[in-house]
Amino acid sequence: MTKRGRFITLEGGEGAGKSTLLAGLRDYLQQHGVDLLQVREPGGTKLGEAIRAIVLDPSHPDISPESELLLMFAARAQLVRERILPALDAGHWVLCDRYVDASYAYQGAGRGQPQERIAELERWACAGLKPDLTLLLDLPVSTGRARAAGRGAADRIETEADAFFERVRQAYRERAHAEPQRWRVIDASLSPDDVLRAATAAMAHLFETHA
Amino acid sequence: MTKRGRFITLEGGEGAGKSTLLAGLRDYLQQHGVDLLQVREPGGTKLGEAIRAIVLDPSHPDISPESELLLMFAARAQLVRERILPALDAGHWVLCDRYVDASYAYQGAGRGQPQERIAELERWACAGLKPDLTLLLDLPVSTGRARAAGRGAADRIETEADAFFERVRQAYRERAHAEPQRWRVIDASLSPDDVLRAATAAMAHLFETHA
Repeated sequence: MTKRGRFITLEGGEGAGKSTLLAGLRDYLQQHGVDLLQVREPGGTKLGEAIRAIVLDPSHPDISPESELLLMFAARAQLVRERILPALDAGHWVLCDRYVDASYAYQGAGRGQPQERIAELERWACAGLKPDLTLLLDLPVSTGRARAAGRGAADRIETEADAFFERVRQAYRERAHAEPQRWRVIDASLSPDDVLRAATAAMAHLFETHA
Repeated sequence: MTKRGRFITLEGGEGAGKSTLLAGLRDYLQQHGVDLLQVREPGGTKLGEAIRAIVLDPSHPDISPESELLLMFAARAQLVRERILPALDAGHWVLCDRYVDASYAYQGAGRGQPQERIAELERWACAGLKPDLTLLLDLPVSTGRARAAGRGAADRIETEADAFFERVRQAYRERAHAEPQRWRVIDASLSPDDVLRAATAAMAHLFETHA
């Protein structure tokens, strides 16, 4: 029987270095013989990418917080069922750029949607799937925004004010604090090599218990 | 103080004659001096029309039932907040081609999503907004499909099997039976004139109590 794969999610704000770390983790896991599926949220499926195009489009400035939350979960429900669960069942590992925790942070703390509402959606839309490990790239908001500033046009969510991103960061830190066995908080002001080292160290136990 | 407008929804399957009735009702209400907003679901806003394009696109054949339900409510949450509630507050009447009852029928009875799940979404995504009157154009499935057959390419939902539409029809009829003060079931096999007459008769009390 195929051993079920591991589900690793990566969270963090703008400019925290998620893309750089994802590339490093992909190489690392492949060198360790892991069959890897890498996906992003919102997205990762045809439906999800169509939803992503709507949600991040700055020409949709007035999307209600309720609609934004529902769209994120519509993309997520599809991603879990169409790609993540089948990959895990086939023994592959899945590395996902954002997952449910991002909704608690952005749509919850950021936009004020109640936590119980998000928890209820998590229960049925995500088929109960929880990450085995969530890496939080933590960085002061001002540092992250300064890093991200050179990247070109901001998307609809990136145009929010600093106070929004402060609430997002705080929510991530609180979630990590409340569930330390699942989370590893990484200081994203470290060098890319040090960030990668911290992330791979946090994965060691996934190999051990997986053997 | 402006008197709040009336909210009328129209439900029914394929080929039941919704478009013909909508045109007749629009004329009737305008002749009675009603300021009318006519909208459709999913749609009616920039966001909603973008969602409609995804949901009805036959090239998205594998949208999960959960995602479809969430997308319908994402469009609805936006429509209620951006257009319906402001219109009602301004004293306009709103005529909506499908509303929450359609989710109970299509995503609930049709796709198997639990009724409590839909009721929970209705509570927070629709801001508690209930129609004052819901007209159901009721027709045997085979009759409706035969009528609709000449219309050109079917959308993603119209390509479902008869059994799906039988469940949809049954759910509509049960909802109408359970809440008779809100619903009026109209035999859609009548002539367009008779259907319109039945619909306008069902509206008389809205004028009376509105005066």
